[in-house]
Amino acid sequence: MRAEKPNNFNAYREAMNEKILAAPNNKIIKRIFNVDTNAYRSGALDEKTKELLGLVASMVLKCDDCIYYHLEGCFDKGVTTQELMEVFGIANLVGGTIVVPHTRRAMEYWGYLHEKQGN
Amino acid sequence: MRAEKPNNFNAYREAMNEKILAAPNNKIIKRIFNVDTNAYRSGALDEKTKELLGLVASMVLKCDDCIYYHLEGCFDKGVTTQELMEVFGIANLVGGTIVVPHTRRAMEYWGYLHEKQGN
Amino acid sequence: MRAEKPNNFNAYREAMNEKILAAPNNKIIKRIFNVDTNAYRSGALDEKTKELLGLVASMVLKCDDCIYYHLEGCFDKGVTTQELMEVFGIANLVGGTIVVPHTRRAMEYWGYLHEKQGN
Amino acid sequence: MRAEKPNNFNAYREAMNEKILAAPNNKIIKRIFNVDTNAYRSGALDEKTKELLGLVASMVLKCDDCIYYHLEGCFDKGVTTQELMEVFGIANLVGGTIVVPHTRRAMEYWGYLHEKQGN
Amino acid sequence: MRAEKPNNFNAYREAMNEKILAAPNNKIIKRIFNVDTNAYRSGALDEKTKELLGLVASMVLKCDDCIYYHLEGCFDKGVTTQELMEVFGIANLVGGTIVVPHTRRAMEYWGYLHEKQGN
Amino acid sequence: MRAEKPNNFNAYREAMNEKILAAPNNKIIKRIFNVDTNAYRSGALDEKTKELLGLVASMVLKCDDCIYYHLEGCFDKGVTTQELMEVFGIANLVGGTIVVPHTRRAMEYWGYLHEKQGN
Repeated sequence: MRAEKPNNFNAYREAMNEKILAAPNNKIIKRIFNVDTNAYRSGALDEKTKELLGLVASMVLKCDDCIYYHLEGCFDKGVTTQELMEVFGIANLVGGTIVVPHTRRAMEYWGYLHEKQGN
Repeated sequence: MRAEKPNNFNAYREAMNEKILAAPNNKIIKRIFNVDTNAYRSGALDEKTKELLGLVASMVLKCDDCIYYHLEGCFDKGVTTQELMEVFGIANLVGGTIVVPHTRRAMEYWGYLHEKQGN
Repeated sequence: MRAEKPNNFNAYREAMNEKILAAPNNKIIKRIFNVDTNAYRSGALDEKTKELLGLVASMVLKCDDCIYYHLEGCFDKGVTTQELMEVFGIANLVGGTIVVPHTRRAMEYWGYLHEKQGN
Repeated sequence: MRAEKPNNFNAYREAMNEKILAAPNNKIIKRIFNVDTNAYRSGALDEKTKELLGLVASMVLKCDDCIYYHLEGCFDKGVTTQELMEVFGIANLVGGTIVVPHTRRAMEYWGYLHEKQGN
Repeated sequence: MRAEKPNNFNAYREAMNEKILAAPNNKIIKRIFNVDTNAYRSGALDEKTKELLGLVASMVLKCDDCIYYHLEGCFDKGVTTQELMEVFGIANLVGGTIVVPHTRRAMEYWGYLHEKQGN
Repeated sequence: MRAEKPNNFNAYREAMNEKILAAPNNKIIKRIFNVDTNAYRSGALDEKTKELLGLVASMVLKCDDCIYYHLEGCFDKGVTTQELMEVFGIANLVGGTIVVPHTRRAMEYWGYLHEKQGN
């Protein structure tokens, strides 16, 4: 499986989130989405550090879509490729080589984000 | 990654299950498949409740194909969207936001099941 | 490892939850605790079904303390041992034999809850 | 947490398995126990190889009791410490450093099995 | 989701590994890759047994790409379909029915490897 | 289960690590231990950030001993309780409420580290 293109990933993510938010009886999910928005806001730790935390957690839990989401956040907060590689190192060490395929797709997605910015 | 269409999912599932059941020396796998058929039959708990249990277990273990399979079961047993949303709530709460991408695909698949019925 | 006694489990659980709720800057955790309370309340699905869902999710994710917590809920909502055994069956089938050690402790804890009630 | 002593582990394991097998409505669990007994019997692969497979699967899934169980099997089938260390290597590499604490307890349990034999 | 074709899988795997190895500040990842190469070499256990260990670990951890990788290794070391089915049995028993969808794709990939050889 | 006391945890950890490092044929494990030491050293990211990354990864993977280890590192690098609570928030959000019991023990261990320093 290859990484998705950022535009495709974000379009699908938004379309389905809208469906979930339009569904009946979705109070619990809505509140979890709400907590999610707040958890990555600047506080005792800054937003960049929080995006790195979200990324490493997503990597060891092997969730590609979560990885793409936090790669976007990392990119927006100015994380460098040098910094990213150290997060990849910790994720693959703590989570093991089953994280490697997700690291390949993360690397590809990270490239797409730079290409997109270049245009 | 998007949800599969029910017809595609079921066709592939059946074709590969047949290959596994036709393979030599597959006694253990066959017996697990057999236990699987029995575990969701009506007993002290009814079939609908068991499908909900299979669904929430599949969601927190982040297994898309297992989710599609139990969504079919839930649909057949008359689970409502209101009930489904509460299962989604518990799955995302207990299993965390790494369940969100699977919830998006579950929502899409659930829509496909309704469309298919509508035809 | 053996199951904890309900009194010990609940005392520690409450003492540490208090510490967490008394800690500074705990807004996100507090909100998650709050969602947790709401997710198991009666809605489209009744409280008993929701406790069963919480239990099976906790079993496949191999979280002993979460299992004890939902066993208390199941006991309070009148779940029978016959019903419980079918949840154990689904949990061990979907989650595999790594769930067996947790099933042993769950069985022991379930016994403690009946003994406690007998006194 | 330290490793359990083999006698304690086995006594508790047997006592609770008996409770599970004496419980009402336990058909699914019983059949899973039965498949478990058969899966490690000699077939196309010999029993020693199957115990190694059971061990590495238990390690990457971080199940101490399952690890102790398969260490007993490995010990009975004559697995050497040199061979065991290579299984530990693969488990820690594939599963990551979260397997290290389980490796410590596995090492301790392996020592207990040798001490017990020495007596 | 269906299994990938071996040629596609290997081409993507190699292309992305090269990108990772060409990235700046990748010392930790490089060393993990290096340990990975060494862990499956013949030692106290032979290479075939080690590939089986890598395969069962990858299956219970539900990592398709890792499964394809070790299926290639198993194929190269002369693992028979009879032997493979017993590994599938242990993986589905220990890891549960959430391993079934990965077993379907493994079965498909194993077929591709035989077709490729036939040409 | 309660948190261990830091002295007990560290004594056992060191004793068993020594046993592993003294065992025959432990080359792979030794190299993983070595990579582990290097991964948390200051680089593009500072040591404090890396300890936070190690902590959140350990929490979502539900490894108590790994959590204690990184809490020691966080304490040494001057992480405040306010910062820690935000890591706890992200871990419980991404990993779900199955992380809560580990958060209780983390809170207790964090208290022990402060008590120990106070003496």
